[in-house]
Amino acid sequence: MSFIRNDWYVAAWPEELTEKPISRRLGNEPVVMYRDRSGKAIALLDRCPHRGAALSMGEVTELGLQCNYHGITFDCEGKAVRIPGQDKIPPKACVKNFPLAEKDGFVWIWLGDADKADHSKIIDYPYQTDTKNWPSKKGVMVVKAHYMHLVDNLMDLTHIGYMHKQTIGSGPSDAYARPLINIERTETGVKFTRWLLDHVPPATYVKAVGFKGLVDRWQEFEFVGPGSVMQFTGALDAGTGAYDQGKREGGFALRIFHALTPETDESCHYFFAPMNGFRPEDPAATEMLYQQIVTTFLEDKAFCEAQQLRLEEISEPQIDYKLDNVRILGRRYYERRMSEQQQQLQAAE
Amino acid sequence: MSFIRNDWYVAAWPEELTEKPISRRLGNEPVVMYRDRSGKAIALLDRCPHRGAALSMGEVTELGLQCNYHGITFDCEGKAVRIPGQDKIPPKACVKNFPLAEKDGFVWIWLGDADKADHSKIIDYPYQTDTKNWPSKKGVMVVKAHYMHLVDNLMDLTHIGYMHKQTIGSGPSDAYARPLINIERTETGVKFTRWLLDHVPPATYVKAVGFKGLVDRWQEFEFVGPGSVMQFTGALDAGTGAYDQGKREGGFALRIFHALTPETDESCHYFFAPMNGFRPEDPAATEMLYQQIVTTFLEDKAFCEAQQLRLEEISEPQIDYKLDNVRILGRRYYERRMSEQQQQLQAAE
Amino acid sequence: MSFIRNDWYVAAWPEELTEKPISRRLGNEPVVMYRDRSGKAIALLDRCPHRGAALSMGEVTELGLQCNYHGITFDCEGKAVRIPGQDKIPPKACVKNFPLAEKDGFVWIWLGDADKADHSKIIDYPYQTDTKNWPSKKGVMVVKAHYMHLVDNLMDLTHIGYMHKQTIGSGPSDAYARPLINIERTETGVKFTRWLLDHVPPATYVKAVGFKGLVDRWQEFEFVGPGSVMQFTGALDAGTGAYDQGKREGGFALRIFHALTPETDESCHYFFAPMNGFRPEDPAATEMLYQQIVTTFLEDKAFCEAQQLRLEEISEPQIDYKLDNVRILGRRYYERRMSEQQQQLQAAE
Repeated sequence: MSFIRNDWYVAAWPEELTEKPISRRLGNEPVVMYRDRSGKAIALLDRCPHRGAALSMGEVTELGLQCNYHGITFDCEGKAVRIPGQDKIPPKACVKNFPLAEKDGFVWIWLGDADKADHSKIIDYPYQTDTKNWPSKKGVMVVKAHYMHLVDNLMDLTHIGYMHKQTIGSGPSDAYARPLINIERTETGVKFTRWLLDHVPPATYVKAVGFKGLVDRWQEFEFVGPGSVMQFTGALDAGTGAYDQGKREGGFALRIFHALTPETDESCHYFFAPMNGFRPEDPAATEMLYQQIVTTFLEDKAFCEAQQLRLEEISEPQIDYKLDNVRILGRRYYERRMSEQQQQLQAAE
Repeated sequence: MSFIRNDWYVAAWPEELTEKPISRRLGNEPVVMYRDRSGKAIALLDRCPHRGAALSMGEVTELGLQCNYHGITFDCEGKAVRIPGQDKIPPKACVKNFPLAEKDGFVWIWLGDADKADHSKIIDYPYQTDTKNWPSKKGVMVVKAHYMHLVDNLMDLTHIGYMHKQTIGSGPSDAYARPLINIERTETGVKFTRWLLDHVPPATYVKAVGFKGLVDRWQEFEFVGPGSVMQFTGALDAGTGAYDQGKREGGFALRIFHALTPETDESCHYFFAPMNGFRPEDPAATEMLYQQIVTTFLEDKAFCEAQQLRLEEISEPQIDYKLDNVRILGRRYYERRMSEQQQQLQAAE
Repeated sequence: MSFIRNDWYVAAWPEELTEKPISRRLGNEPVVMYRDRSGKAIALLDRCPHRGAALSMGEVTELGLQCNYHGITFDCEGKAVRIPGQDKIPPKACVKNFPLAEKDGFVWIWLGDADKADHSKIIDYPYQTDTKNWPSKKGVMVVKAHYMHLVDNLMDLTHIGYMHKQTIGSGPSDAYARPLINIERTETGVKFTRWLLDHVPPATYVKAVGFKGLVDRWQEFEFVGPGSVMQFTGALDAGTGAYDQGKREGGFALRIFHALTPETDESCHYFFAPMNGFRPEDPAATEMLYQQIVTTFLEDKAFCEAQQLRLEEISEPQIDYKLDNVRILGRRYYERRMSEQQQQLQAAE
């Protein structure tokens, strides 16, 4: 296993869950997710305890999720409540239930021991549901790379000048490698603010708000383990107070909640919803922003997937460079949690 | 290995075998099948003993099957009879021959020790070749599931009310879970008759023979190990003698010989030919029946393939329910044969 | 490992290498190849030592090959010469360099210990670049078979009468199995000349030079280990001096340098460029020849790929026949080199 078990991950967008069950591999287990007749979101192991059929091929009834192989029906906790052809329901007729929580526009799943699920640990995030000020279009894609490679990617924005120079990496590539940066280690990861002053704005920014000259551009990122990265970036005309007076209004502004969820040990789900903070009343601007970000993320995906293959094949130690400093703080959080987990698993044996 | 070796399985439909060799994986071995110039059906290991070429890429000549890599030719027993460039034929120049038998409209192969092949064990089945009374259209598909999962499927018809409710699962789903059932254990498996009295006829049945009201519907199935299931189902107008007087004429009637043959340890070939016993003089009725059955079997295939994946991944014990009673008798036959096989293999070591 | 390491193999056609890097698996390693600004061909391990990104997704700059993940740049020897965000370059920041050599129209790579690379061992071959007398069109394809199966194929031309009878295998199949043959073992493999006298010319030959009757056809092949086979074949009108007077002019003539390079342990790259020695001034003749040869090679590919699968699955000893005599000499070279390599690897442990 290569992920932190006892914690919350984004499992789905709320709109994805309906009475038509969907199957998604999460934390290397097949999971079926759906809503019952009351609208409650439910996640169960996608495997009927009778003959192993996929529950996701079943249907929601008044009683719960009906397996469409032989009709056994499970309630929201995974307990069989109806077995065709018999009245008695054996206590072992149940399927694993995953704690699920809907909060602030995300469906969260607990990928560890159910009795340890602590709802107070779920991140507060007021923006995703604030569709007036931060309208967004939602996306999700599978990336065939371990989720921490995506976190690494977001923790070192040097890559923007190289990997994304056709999209958001405006100006000289080197500009991104000599930032003004403020780094803060946190209990759940790390956060940083980068500044690019007197900076050529990316084409996306110009298109969005019509910058005429140079800008001051900020990049605020926070990694909150196990798999969330909250981004707030934007720019104002250079020297108009973004950097020294904390002004954020009147230019370009963008938020993204990057949710990275292990699918298998070598792949992850990438949930994202770029939020239009520059022309929130304009749906075309939200759509334009989404398309630009998807283009960028497909570049990240291509690089991380090739990286995953190389690292699987050749495990020689890598070399860290100076700008890995933030990334390494993120990794330390991951390694500490993984090490604790290892000890707990060993103690339990 | 996970199949009964020393026994007969359906390898092909007779029409599939011509002078143009075909390759098919059977019992986890690559097999080439063809007819020689006399029309005799032959099965050999699909691997030339010279350099390992696929014999199925060769051609039939007067002398036998010619490998089209270097021209070595094998007779119907797999013995080389011609080696280009030399007159002497070494005794080791031969390829494994599989006992093959054509009987009652099927080509049977013996997937075990050739010297134990007992032709008297091949099932008698008078219907497949009785094209006047039981015309059929033949099909074969690969299902990525162990062949016993398909046998299991046929041994518990409760699933019709759930999995096939769009096709042959008419009436309330529960109807199939409370049948009148007669079960008989046999030396080679198990057979049963199920009755659904005063039953809403499936759309297929109505379309076929124009039922106006309820019917009495029978489902006679026999599993004959290792991989055959013989089905005879049908219906008459309710209360017109099907159940209490043994009448079978004047309504809907259908036979299927389900032949399930291991391809690999996780997949099988499914041979089937739904026989039109209700309007045998009408080819359109035969075609309609075939299309309905294929639709149904694709549902079985989808469920069994997902089931195979789940059971490969998570091997926890499953829970049996009451209606598994027939299925379990089928499994006992399989397990007894597998256990005997295991003992013989160990004794031989 | 199943290939001779310390030796030269063809890695690419010179035209394939430009400032746009390409990735190719060679000797079971991912290799990036490109030309630097001076036009020099370079091969590096396709894995950045920083975070494992694929260098083939990078770009060539004045300084060398820039990884487009974080901008680290490597010179032609694989040494980092620029690391964004820092001035100091640690000595460990380097990537494996493969010796590469351009000679006589081929790009050769040394797939072993770089310090043992001996440029004097690269084959001399004056024809590939003699585009006046031997114009050619170049091809490369991946064959999912060990490269020695392709060498075997070329060392036993008996197969032409069977596998290629639709293309170059004219006349009775047996003609190719009773050749006049002269065999010579060499230090680096084996060579042979085969003669087919009073022979029906292949359709390709007739189309090329308009033969009216029978021909005398020669087939000169030399295997030079580890992976090269040089072919010179052709034909003159029967009895006009090809066989007894050594005449080669005035008929059909064709050269091919077959370069077989291990991709993985079970697959290889097949480089080939059929050279038109019969109407060198006519580009349409060169194109026609290429198309005919490609058709033939796709037959070789199909047979060798099936053979690879069969031999992977069933490892029983094969049977040699008389005409394996040349092939076996080629294999002896391979086995001697592999055995020496094994001893060296063991001695080094």
